[in-house]
Amino acid sequence: MEFWPSANSEVDKWKEVQLVYQSALKEIGTKLEILNDEFQHVHKYNPIEHIKSRIKTSESIVKKLKRNGYDSTIENMIEHVNDIAGIRVICSFTSDIEQIAKMIERQSDLKVIGIKDYFTNPKPNGYQSYHMLVTVPINLSDRIVDTKVEIQIRTVAMDFWASLEHKIHYKFEGETPETIERELMECARMVSELDAKMLSLNNEVRKIEEQD
Amino acid sequence: MEFWPSANSEVDKWKEVQLVYQSALKEIGTKLEILNDEFQHVHKYNPIEHIKSRIKTSESIVKKLKRNGYDSTIENMIEHVNDIAGIRVICSFTSDIEQIAKMIERQSDLKVIGIKDYFTNPKPNGYQSYHMLVTVPINLSDRIVDTKVEIQIRTVAMDFWASLEHKIHYKFEGETPETIERELMECARMVSELDAKMLSLNNEVRKIEEQD
Amino acid sequence: MEFWPSANSEVDKWKEVQLVYQSALKEIGTKLEILNDEFQHVHKYNPIEHIKSRIKTSESIVKKLKRNGYDSTIENMIEHVNDIAGIRVICSFTSDIEQIAKMIERQSDLKVIGIKDYFTNPKPNGYQSYHMLVTVPINLSDRIVDTKVEIQIRTVAMDFWASLEHKIHYKFEGETPETIERELMECARMVSELDAKMLSLNNEVRKIEEQD
Amino acid sequence: MEFWPSANSEVDKWKEVQLVYQSALKEIGTKLEILNDEFQHVHKYNPIEHIKSRIKTSESIVKKLKRNGYDSTIENMIEHVNDIAGIRVICSFTSDIEQIAKMIERQSDLKVIGIKDYFTNPKPNGYQSYHMLVTVPINLSDRIVDTKVEIQIRTVAMDFWASLEHKIHYKFEGETPETIERELMECARMVSELDAKMLSLNNEVRKIEEQD
Repeated sequence: MEFWPSANSEVDKWKEVQLVYQSALKEIGTKLEILNDEFQHVHKYNPIEHIKSRIKTSESIVKKLKRNGYDSTIENMIEHVNDIAGIRVICSFTSDIEQIAKMIERQSDLKVIGIKDYFTNPKPNGYQSYHMLVTVPINLSDRIVDTKVEIQIRTVAMDFWASLEHKIHYKFEGETPETIERELMECARMVSELDAKMLSLNNEVRKIEEQD
Repeated sequence: MEFWPSANSEVDKWKEVQLVYQSALKEIGTKLEILNDEFQHVHKYNPIEHIKSRIKTSESIVKKLKRNGYDSTIENMIEHVNDIAGIRVICSFTSDIEQIAKMIERQSDLKVIGIKDYFTNPKPNGYQSYHMLVTVPINLSDRIVDTKVEIQIRTVAMDFWASLEHKIHYKFEGETPETIERELMECARMVSELDAKMLSLNNEVRKIEEQD
Repeated sequence: MEFWPSANSEVDKWKEVQLVYQSALKEIGTKLEILNDEFQHVHKYNPIEHIKSRIKTSESIVKKLKRNGYDSTIENMIEHVNDIAGIRVICSFTSDIEQIAKMIERQSDLKVIGIKDYFTNPKPNGYQSYHMLVTVPINLSDRIVDTKVEIQIRTVAMDFWASLEHKIHYKFEGETPETIERELMECARMVSELDAKMLSLNNEVRKIEEQD
Repeated sequence: MEFWPSANSEVDKWKEVQLVYQSALKEIGTKLEILNDEFQHVHKYNPIEHIKSRIKTSESIVKKLKRNGYDSTIENMIEHVNDIAGIRVICSFTSDIEQIAKMIERQSDLKVIGIKDYFTNPKPNGYQSYHMLVTVPINLSDRIVDTKVEIQIRTVAMDFWASLEHKIHYKFEGETPETIERELMECARMVSELDAKMLSLNNEVRKIEEQD
């Protein structure tokens, strides 16, 4: 059963929607914590550096619906905006991204309904990240609703770049000067190089370690 | 599938056991938070005042096994000690106890495997509380394990009494002087009276309110 | 130096005021945690059961100013409303109240500017609690402001009573029916009796313990 | 007054020492939160990305004392080990480092007793970070003790590098192969370049913004 609010007024419906997405973020957050603890126990290593989560503001949701030609109804929000609930998983090495994605895929009560691999195929502006769209069942008092959450997995360096890009994009409202765009691309390249170098160094250390 | 540790050494097995019970407490804690938020949204009232949780120490577990005539193996712990993971839900009014129990029963992914109703039938020493033994499925990386958690539901006043009783029982190691025991019984009686009085007052207020 | 907001607009001033009071709650919260940890270390006993804190809503502040005949300016709020920042310290036994009050008085960087002892002298409606009005210096980037915080110290049972009384008072907007008021008084009496009984039992246990 | 433990046994003294350093971390953490909130309020910008804190393990402390030729007494720990309590402040841009350092210096109740500027002058192995050694007064029940805390301020990229370096140093116990050391230096160079590039991009954006 997909989630549809049962309240009468639009304001109450939106509150109910927020509540359910907030619950979904809590459930996924708990699951990731448990997986990280287990990984740490078995492999003596934390693949997850830290986690941030957020509910999209109603302003951003409405903007996104408009941009895509939909009316601003709560039904359209739920059906057409996939990142109302977003959780960001930050890791140290690019190799962790795959590990974390696999751990999520194996969860029996999560359903992966979409993947966008901007890690292997960065966006034209340089954006790198691995996106998974999942649904998690939320037990309300009278029904269970499958709720969509977008999970973004990226390294510390990718996350730093993405924060700056977001700030710039927001400031120029989509009309970023070309010079700034070129600089951002250059920064994205440096981020990739640094990530590659740090990973190769980490692998080298592990190889020496295993020889001992 | 029931939970059995997969590690080799006893120490590692115990760590694994703790990890799984810790995860179960996190899952149940999240579920209760979600239910409380929803209740608050629908009824403008928080049935849950606050929540505490704990893992039983290995010393207490071993003592309990001994008392019941079992060897101190990890398998016996899992099979015969039901309150390794315990979560305590404190509420304001005795009427909340039933509400909370019902909310838990309706959760599709929890299985209630036992009830001990020391609220309707207090223990001889005066102890009052509603106990539910449930299992919650924990998604580990390679399997799902149904993990037992004891949920204790009680009012603020019952909880205050139980803390003092626990302290006294622990101090006298089971050989509590009879005078102290009688006083405890007397306190338990006062707790019940106070809870009944506060509930009837609360109901009276609600009745007046509904007339308006 | 007392706290006066430096912002220009009224909205920004109110945000600044909230920020400073929020900071004061954080500082006092940290201090109480440290004192409780030390007490636990030295005496193997936690006098503090738990702590809650809140900022008074602007609506409640405005109402209070009006009730006392003041205009609703931010300057009047700061000068005449003492409980904009409130912290509630809940303890098990009435004897803990004095312990906690003494610990707070000894803090060199807090200044106690007022005491209302509704524990020894309950309010006519039965309300029991020990109130301390203190100021704590808050280090902002360009100045230090002494900020007022009201600390309320009470037992678990007193707190339970106060929650119900608050709810009732709020519902009837000050015009509580006399029967309800009489019942509340009766409950307050039962709370005092229970607190006295539990304390005497606790003392008795300690006496036996010391004889051993 | 400097801090000296008052307990009798060595074990109790060490517990007391840990308690006081833990309290110092809490106090500094609260102060940094307040400063960050205020900065955000005034400048609409968070200089602090996130904060981590830790107490040095007794093993590490004893090792450090040995390395520097001191006996392993608790008095020597307090006098000669400056980073028993450590707090790490992570920021986005290198320009934030100075901002944060200035905010800390202006705190009237912190005393800065030492600065190590590995940001301007990196360590030979490439390590970059700005270290401040401060004392904070901790109010115990019977005395106030000035407690040392080392504050490390660094960017996200520097922090990533430092984590890997720490792991490598720990694995090879100081005898890191020369090739690995050279690679680490190379990574440190890339981190500096990335930080410089991201900062210049951020400044450029702000300049355009101010022209508007």
